[in-house]
Amino acid sequence: MRVPLPLPHAHRLLNHGPVTLVGTAHQGRRNVMAAAWVMPIDFTPPKFAAVIAADTLTRELLVRSGECTLMAPTDAQLATTYALGTHTGHEVDKFDRFSLSATRGEMVAAPLVDGCAAWLECRRLPEPQVESAYDLFVLECVAAWVDDTLWHDGAWRFPTDGPRTIHHVKGGLFLTTGEPRRAPR
Amino acid sequence: MRVPLPLPHAHRLLNHGPVTLVGTAHQGRRNVMAAAWVMPIDFTPPKFAAVIAADTLTRELLVRSGECTLMAPTDAQLATTYALGTHTGHEVDKFDRFSLSATRGEMVAAPLVDGCAAWLECRRLPEPQVESAYDLFVLECVAAWVDDTLWHDGAWRFPTDGPRTIHHVKGGLFLTTGEPRRAPR
Repeated sequence: MRVPLPLPHAHRLLNHGPVTLVGTAHQGRRNVMAAAWVMPIDFTPPKFAAVIAADTLTRELLVRSGECTLMAPTDAQLATTYALGTHTGHEVDKFDRFSLSATRGEMVAAPLVDGCAAWLECRRLPEPQVESAYDLFVLECVAAWVDDTLWHDGAWRFPTDGPRTIHHVKGGLFLTTGEPRRAPR
Repeated sequence: MRVPLPLPHAHRLLNHGPVTLVGTAHQGRRNVMAAAWVMPIDFTPPKFAAVIAADTLTRELLVRSGECTLMAPTDAQLATTYALGTHTGHEVDKFDRFSLSATRGEMVAAPLVDGCAAWLECRRLPEPQVESAYDLFVLECVAAWVDDTLWHDGAWRFPTDGPRTIHHVKGGLFLTTGEPRRAPR
């Protein structure tokens, strides 16, 4: 079940570097794409950096609305995640094409795609120089959610045989998130 | 064995979001710290973004020298990685303290720590606004290396019982990199 996460823990949702989905919406149009180049950059308020290419519908809707969602899909969504990264919202309605179920965010209008492990609602902090030079966007997280079957004591706990997050290597090849290991004190 | 990697493949070394070590050197001083917030931001030439806090020796040496190395440690180095992230080079020589073996980079003076899975030699692309606002640095990769026992056909291939990269969740809790999964064509 999707449950709210305290904002000071939001960075932990993407600290381990999984591939993400980026959701956007503006004036009746919405889209979702896959993005591997997303990471936390600050704790409180939580901030994230994301590379969003200039020719994408996501970029257009993000800039127009000033908002997006970031989500961590699971291995059950692996084929869909890859498809969302290899089709453009300029040409297809990805929600229809890939039968995505989604609801509107609580703090932003961008979509929260069902079945993910984590969801972050974000607002763009405009940084024109790095947006223009590197397609690099700075986002402030204003709400965070996690699947409570995958989260315990403020951290990920993936069941041995259950869903887990995924990491993109190249062209449709992913690595699942593996097993926990704790450093000695 | 450490072998050179073609620069157009360099982003794949960190595409899956592992924790990194950041090496720096300047005028006879050198340091290494752990950093989870490092990711690729471009393919060719390969570029990376990294969060380097303002009070660190790494920041001082990176800004003075304009160079650093980024490395992906393995689970065999997990305890050392955590220790490198919880001690400051302002107070201890981490190479002595943690018995690190390292060689100088080929294109930069910063150290390449032995035993890692991947090594990137980088030069800082100054971006004063985001460096100041978010401790966010943009780096261009000028040389890349990988452990050839962990790399096959242009991608990670971790042996079932061998070393693998690690991902930080919080305070000494890591997740190892898991198993490969390929999206259907």
